[in-house]
Amino acid sequence: MSPLEQLQQQLRQLPGLGPRSAERLALHLLVEKPDKLAALVAALQAAARGTGRCTRCGHLAEGELCGICADPRRDAAVVCVVEQVPDLVALERAGTYRGAYHVLHGRLSPINGVGPEQLNLAALRARVAAGGVAELILALANDVESEATCHFLTQQLATAEAAGAAETPAGGPARAPVKITRIGFGLPSGGSVLHADPVTLKSALDGRRTYA
Amino acid sequence: MSPLEQLQQQLRQLPGLGPRSAERLALHLLVEKPDKLAALVAALQAAARGTGRCTRCGHLAEGELCGICADPRRDAAVVCVVEQVPDLVALERAGTYRGAYHVLHGRLSPINGVGPEQLNLAALRARVAAGGVAELILALANDVESEATCHFLTQQLATAEAAGAAETPAGGPARAPVKITRIGFGLPSGGSVLHADPVTLKSALDGRRTYA
Repeated sequence: MSPLEQLQQQLRQLPGLGPRSAERLALHLLVEKPDKLAALVAALQAAARGTGRCTRCGHLAEGELCGICADPRRDAAVVCVVEQVPDLVALERAGTYRGAYHVLHGRLSPINGVGPEQLNLAALRARVAAGGVAELILALANDVESEATCHFLTQQLATAEAAGAAETPAGGPARAPVKITRIGFGLPSGGSVLHADPVTLKSALDGRRTYA
Repeated sequence: MSPLEQLQQQLRQLPGLGPRSAERLALHLLVEKPDKLAALVAALQAAARGTGRCTRCGHLAEGELCGICADPRRDAAVVCVVEQVPDLVALERAGTYRGAYHVLHGRLSPINGVGPEQLNLAALRARVAAGGVAELILALANDVESEATCHFLTQQLATAEAAGAAETPAGGPARAPVKITRIGFGLPSGGSVLHADPVTLKSALDGRRTYA
C-alpha cells in the first residue's frame, strides 16, 4: 500500500470521514498544502502530550482534573452520566446544566466486545461510595444498548450502595440513597407528532407526565 | 489557547471540515481513541516523507514522475490541464481519458493574491516548448476565475509558441501549432432544462453543437 493509501485508510477510520472526504483530505495535505501537514502533525502531538483523562470524571483534562471538576461553582452533588465526551460537550453547549459529569467512554455492547470492564465504571462506583453524590442523571441515548447500560449501572450502584451502607459505623449518620434519574425522551424541540417516527412516539407516550 | 483548541483550529482549516466536525475529530482522537492519534501522526509523516510533486505534471508522485507520466501506455501528446489534484483524480475515476495531465495547483485569483507566478505554469510552457504536445485540453471550472485563467494561459502559450517557432532552424521541420480545447459546459448527466439554473442554461446554449 502506498503512503497515500495508508494515510487515506487512517483518515477513513475517523468519525464523519467517508472514503471521498478521506481522499480529499489526504490529497489536500500532501499536494496542495504541505505546510498544513506539518502544522497538523505538530498540533496533534502537542495535544496528545498536553491532555489526558480527568481522574475523577473521565473528561478530557489538561491536568489532574478537568475544568468542570476543578470549578468550585459547579454542583458536585449532581452527576450527569454520559457515554462519550462529545455528549458532554453538547450538554455544555446547551448551557443549562451546572452539575458535574461522569464519562463512561462507551456503553455495553456485547456484539462489539464492550463489557463492563471496558467502561469507566469503577471510578463512578468509587465516587458514589465516597458519598457527596445526591443524584445521578443518566444521559445515555434512547436505544437498546444504552437502555441495557442504564439497567446494568443502576443494579451495580444499588449493590455498591448496600455494601457502603453496611460499612457505615453504627450510630453514624445514615447516608441518603443516591437518586437515579434518566433524561426525558420524546418529541425534540420543534417536533410534531405527524412527522415523528414510531419509536419516538412510543418514547413520548411512555414518558408522558401529569400536566394539569 | 489550549492544545485541544489549537488542534481544532488546525483541523478546521482542512477542506470539508467545519467547526463541529473539527471538534468531533479532535475529541475523538484525544479522548476516545488515543491509539488512532499515534497511527494518524505516523501515517501523515510517512506520507509526507514518501511523496512529492511529479516534476513533469505536478501530480502527487512517489518518485521523480507520477504514475501517469511514467506509464508508457498513456498518450503524452494530449495534456489535460486541471486546477487541482482532486480534479485529476475525479477525471481518472471517470476512466475515459488516456492522455497525460498538467496540474496548475490553483487558478488566477487576484482577490486571493494568486497570480501567474503562484501557478505551475513555467513547467507547462516548458512542456509545450519542448514539443511533442499536440493538444492541450483545458479542464478548468465553469466560472469567471477559471475563464480568466484559461484566457491568460492561451495567450501565454501563443507567445511561447511564436518564440519557439522563431528558434526553429531555417529548413528544419515546421512544428504544428498546439491545439487548445476546453471541456464542454452544459447540462450534467441526467439534468433537465427545467431544473437547470440560468447560468448553466447560458453555458449550454453558448456550447451548442451542430447536431444534424
